[in-house]
Amino acid sequence: MRRDRPRATARDLERYAALFASRTRVMTSSAMRDLMAITERPEVISLAGGLPDTSTFPAEDVAALAAKMAVEGAARALQYGPTDGLAAVKDCIVAVMAAEGTPVDPDDLLVTTGGQQVIDLVCKTLVDPGDVIVAEGPTYPGAVPAFTSYQADVVQIPMDADGMCVDQMEDVLDRLEADGRRPKFIYTIPNFQNPAGVTMALDRRRRLVEVAAERELLVLEDNPYGLLRYEGEPLPTLRSLDEGEFVIYLGTFSKILAPGLRLGWAAAPGPVLEKLNLGKQATDLCSSTFAQSFVAAFFAHREWRSYVERLRGLYRRRRDIMLDALAEHLPREARFTKPQGGLFLWATLPDELDTTDLLARALSRNVAFVPGRAAYTDGRGGSSMRLNFSGVGEDTIREGVRRIGEVAQEQLDLLRSIAGPAPAAKVADDPARAALDGPATDGPLADVLRLPPRDERSRRRDAR
Amino acid sequence: MRRDRPRATARDLERYAALFASRTRVMTSSAMRDLMAITERPEVISLAGGLPDTSTFPAEDVAALAAKMAVEGAARALQYGPTDGLAAVKDCIVAVMAAEGTPVDPDDLLVTTGGQQVIDLVCKTLVDPGDVIVAEGPTYPGAVPAFTSYQADVVQIPMDADGMCVDQMEDVLDRLEADGRRPKFIYTIPNFQNPAGVTMALDRRRRLVEVAAERELLVLEDNPYGLLRYEGEPLPTLRSLDEGEFVIYLGTFSKILAPGLRLGWAAAPGPVLEKLNLGKQATDLCSSTFAQSFVAAFFAHREWRSYVERLRGLYRRRRDIMLDALAEHLPREARFTKPQGGLFLWATLPDELDTTDLLARALSRNVAFVPGRAAYTDGRGGSSMRLNFSGVGEDTIREGVRRIGEVAQEQLDLLRSIAGPAPAAKVADDPARAALDGPATDGPLADVLRLPPRDERSRRRDAR
Repeated sequence: MRRDRPRATARDLERYAALFASRTRVMTSSAMRDLMAITERPEVISLAGGLPDTSTFPAEDVAALAAKMAVEGAARALQYGPTDGLAAVKDCIVAVMAAEGTPVDPDDLLVTTGGQQVIDLVCKTLVDPGDVIVAEGPTYPGAVPAFTSYQADVVQIPMDADGMCVDQMEDVLDRLEADGRRPKFIYTIPNFQNPAGVTMALDRRRRLVEVAAERELLVLEDNPYGLLRYEGEPLPTLRSLDEGEFVIYLGTFSKILAPGLRLGWAAAPGPVLEKLNLGKQATDLCSSTFAQSFVAAFFAHREWRSYVERLRGLYRRRRDIMLDALAEHLPREARFTKPQGGLFLWATLPDELDTTDLLARALSRNVAFVPGRAAYTDGRGGSSMRLNFSGVGEDTIREGVRRIGEVAQEQLDLLRSIAGPAPAAKVADDPARAALDGPATDGPLADVLRLPPRDERSRRRDAR
Repeated sequence: MRRDRPRATARDLERYAALFASRTRVMTSSAMRDLMAITERPEVISLAGGLPDTSTFPAEDVAALAAKMAVEGAARALQYGPTDGLAAVKDCIVAVMAAEGTPVDPDDLLVTTGGQQVIDLVCKTLVDPGDVIVAEGPTYPGAVPAFTSYQADVVQIPMDADGMCVDQMEDVLDRLEADGRRPKFIYTIPNFQNPAGVTMALDRRRRLVEVAAERELLVLEDNPYGLLRYEGEPLPTLRSLDEGEFVIYLGTFSKILAPGLRLGWAAAPGPVLEKLNLGKQATDLCSSTFAQSFVAAFFAHREWRSYVERLRGLYRRRRDIMLDALAEHLPREARFTKPQGGLFLWATLPDELDTTDLLARALSRNVAFVPGRAAYTDGRGGSSMRLNFSGVGEDTIREGVRRIGEVAQEQLDLLRSIAGPAPAAKVADDPARAALDGPATDGPLADVLRLPPRDERSRRRDAR
């Protein structure tokens, strides 16, 4: 062995880099994951993570359920299991989906290592480098690195208070088609969207599944929070409207039970499910049977609906506290969404503020949020932020928002003292119909997206 | 919604297929995973799986440890954790690696969802379609679908009783280099190899890490069974010889504790580890903190070495039972390896027997094994099989081997009654030095591999 060579030099780094795959060179880090290391410090108030409050789950229940799990089959809980998941867990999933009016056959299910793995496996199964994924703008910041690692071109469709603007999505699909590009799937979080907190209206849901059927496109419906509704009537899932023809449904135990179990699931059309299963075999063989056995014990011996009901009460109060605090502390021109459920809301500060810069200042006062750019692949979202209201207590929410408001106002005052008097605040004609962030101007598909919209092109075609 | 269309027709299947990625079209199923569904039937004796005997872990211990885990931090066990793993689990890993004489810094570790995820992430980080992976022949059947899903070209190096023939590997590297191809990594299981059961000799280990350093190639050292040695002296890990410069080390709790936890780890050079971490973020965020907390509780409150010692005694007896049964029941010309540890051995039947065909007959008598072709990407291994001796009891091993011997002998008698008298059995000059299976004749790199070996080429070069 040559031990005389210096180690970890720049030359070493280059040497390894030469062995990396092309996807590795474009892989990005998840903004939330990076922040997690910082926000682990106890003095930091984190409104950044997507953390449920796991302290609501009684410690003595963990012990009691684990004891039951041991009695009912310790050897099985410790052993490898089938790739598609334990039958007992699939029965729990059927019950959870039924509670959202979505019947499913256990044979159409794949138990996964959290909902994140469904996103990864769907990309693995469908996406070649350069393929198009249609997503919401903003989209789940954790989906961005998954899409990037498969070298996808992501097109993000504007959202308003009624969720993704499906008519604009149709325009984009037309333009892509004109450019010879067919998206591999449409990614959406219809309920209490992460990060925007808005919910897709019923007419848009119906139209979205119609469009998918007409154009034979797959939809990935990500529904982690559907049961965490704090007001208003539940809306049908896309899968229940589509009956499982073009919709791949993503569910998870993370938000109704515990994310530390790392258990989610996919319900997918047979030919797709089969490929997701093959992908999972190669990736991790099967998800933890130990965690799966705990879920089965929980559903057998506890009232899972009561636990969700308790979470709903807790998070509803926290949401209300945050909405009040935002109204009180954010700069006057700021806008924010009013989620009917879920864990997040989306706040947009005056244009001249950059939330990535603001985060550094906020961290110096021990408060964290997810800057808006993490939810886009094209640089948008620069004056927005995602705020979580489920992970910390009421007083902490108030204090966290107060500090964010303080640094935002200070920065705004500073900028305006340099730039002169403040411009008139932009107010949309109908705030409920206003897009959350501006239009895309950059990114791999900007050229396609700058094509004239459908009406104008039809007119041109007709004129020929 | 159009509900009048017939569903799941051939046209539907085609429609979905058009949306699949190119990798999906070449994805293969894991032979063991397929067999798992069959071998779950209680009447089937499975010598196919890679199952440890989890019934040796006392059920009351699962309950007691889970209770401790709940007391020590239920909220943390149920919450998301850092992508690289809980600090307490990294401390356990440091202790396990120290027991194999392999010092490691916790900062060089990534906790993964089983060892399988390390293979997947290493491929994700390093392999573009068409890139070369050098592996042993036979190789771990579960690595084959992982390699395939990244569209790698796999070159398999023959093995003998002393493990991978490193001199032949050097020849292959020369030929690849002459063809302008640099392998992305060399995949090896040095201890009690899966599936061959052989162990790489010390001089070959030293040479392998030398070659890696000289040629600046990464090595993936897969070491799930190192602590399960039943005889002979432990040999140094490749990582301890290389000091973490070009070796990525894969470890797992599956074989020393329980596979149902789905927890393994990678120890890798810094620049590689960073990319593995990015890949994991996008794939499943983090591995189950619930399972990780259980591991931490087990190491804190039990003597993990005693449990491994108990497994060693149990599996040693089962190995001996299987070796005796094979000597008694397999056809006279059959050969099989004598593993010094681990879970598997490799049996090679007379050439005219095809173990894929034989498996169908064996299953009709309720006994299963992994056919040898599953351990190759080039069609080799047709008369070999992998047998597991850890998963079932002693009487069951005897009966399973008896049935396999019976169907093998019947099939052999049948073939020879058709084809005339048996040919003289081929016996290598030195059986210990004989390669386990024949040379590669097919596969994507067969042309490269059919180039003349190094000596002859040097002679030719010199003659020019």
